[in-house]
Amino acid sequence: MLKLYHAPQSRSTRIVQLIHEMGVADQVEVHRVVIPRRDGTGARDTANPHPEGKVPLLVHADAVIRESNAIMLYLTDHFSGNPLGRDVGAPGRGAYLSWLAWYGNVFEPLIVMQFCELSHPGLDNTFRDMDTANTRLAEALSTHDYLVDDQISAADILISSTYAWAPQLAPDVPIIRDWIARCLNRPATKAIAESEMAAA
Amino acid sequence: MLKLYHAPQSRSTRIVQLIHEMGVADQVEVHRVVIPRRDGTGARDTANPHPEGKVPLLVHADAVIRESNAIMLYLTDHFSGNPLGRDVGAPGRGAYLSWLAWYGNVFEPLIVMQFCELSHPGLDNTFRDMDTANTRLAEALSTHDYLVDDQISAADILISSTYAWAPQLAPDVPIIRDWIARCLNRPATKAIAESEMAAA
Ligand SMILES: N[C@@H](CCC(=O)N[C@@H](CS)C(=O)NCC(=O)O)C(=O)O
Ligand SMILES: N[C@@H](CCC(=O)N[C@@H](CS)C(=O)NCC(=O)O)C(=O)O
Repeated sequence: MLKLYHAPQSRSTRIVQLIHEMGVADQVEVHRVVIPRRDGTGARDTANPHPEGKVPLLVHADAVIRESNAIMLYLTDHFSGNPLGRDVGAPGRGAYLSWLAWYGNVFEPLIVMQFCELSHPGLDNTFRDMDTANTRLAEALSTHDYLVDDQISAADILISSTYAWAPQLAPDVPIIRDWIARCLNRPATKAIAESEMAAA
Repeated sequence: MLKLYHAPQSRSTRIVQLIHEMGVADQVEVHRVVIPRRDGTGARDTANPHPEGKVPLLVHADAVIRESNAIMLYLTDHFSGNPLGRDVGAPGRGAYLSWLAWYGNVFEPLIVMQFCELSHPGLDNTFRDMDTANTRLAEALSTHDYLVDDQISAADILISSTYAWAPQLAPDVPIIRDWIARCLNRPATKAIAESEMAAA
């Protein structure tokens, strides 16, 4: 059995959303843990096997998988043929891997630096800037409905999840705003976001 | 045919090294391009299809794959059964995906921030710090010779490549220094590094 360590309203929420979108919620046990929160509440949970006490974390037999993009890829590869993934050898595999990696290598660092109000020419060298990131999103979305192709993938769920907790970051670009709305308003995704909000 | 866009002595060098370690150099065309260098030499190359003029970039038929970790995974999945990869379903797949993602999500941002001499509590929240990163490496290396298991994988080539251009970042931890030496001294990896240095 696959086990996901999850804290509501955190970076693991998108993994729960993916599992529901994939229709495999009966095959992944979700273990609730607590984490330290920005407002000073919460704490590191000794029941969480993540070496830094973070979420998400996926455990599958002996394997411990960390990092949201790796977890999403592990899940979609494991449940091969699921429409949320792009299997090895399938058209779209290259774009799928690129967007998953781009989220972690470029987009999340840009978001964190923006929140910290940090700027430095050395950062621009590696990560470029938010305008460049938005240009990449708009380019992809101008040729198909979702980032990889015309069908939603886990990469859309990962990247659009940013705008669920930081809607002010949505750029004033209709093609991107429409995509965010399409991703966040999916029934399963929306139901999970709303039930975590109601419980909070 | 697979095509790799490469600039010597850059982040694409490790992809060339991986291709040689995998024994598939005859199946990947390497296209040399130039990039802007820190010393002010070089420039964006119009022959490079990367949307930001960066390297590495891999092209395979219609697919354009960016980001070093995504490129390495694409290559090892494509040449399935190669000892440098861990195929879907194989033991080690979870750790392999985690280390590839960790490099891009955590380790490279930490390195860039260290070079820029940036620090901020918001960065520590997401990325923790170099000591924590080194603790993760030492933990893995205390139970097996390489990060995933006792056999080198593309994740070792990716992560150890940092110390080829920034040896001063190698922590004073024998288990990590020995692993760096094992990775960087492999005949194919070393020969490529040396020939790029001699040509420069
Ligand atoms: N790059 C990681 C980030 C994980 C992360 O920072 N998660 C936060 C929740 S939003 C966490 O667990 N924070 C608690 C802590 O830092 O102790 C991923 O995407 O999986
Ligand atoms: N996260 C990317 C980084 C790629 C990158 O920044 N490459 C550098 C070479 S070391 C580059 O092409 N720089 C030229 C430029 O920024 O214009 C990866 O690992 O593939």
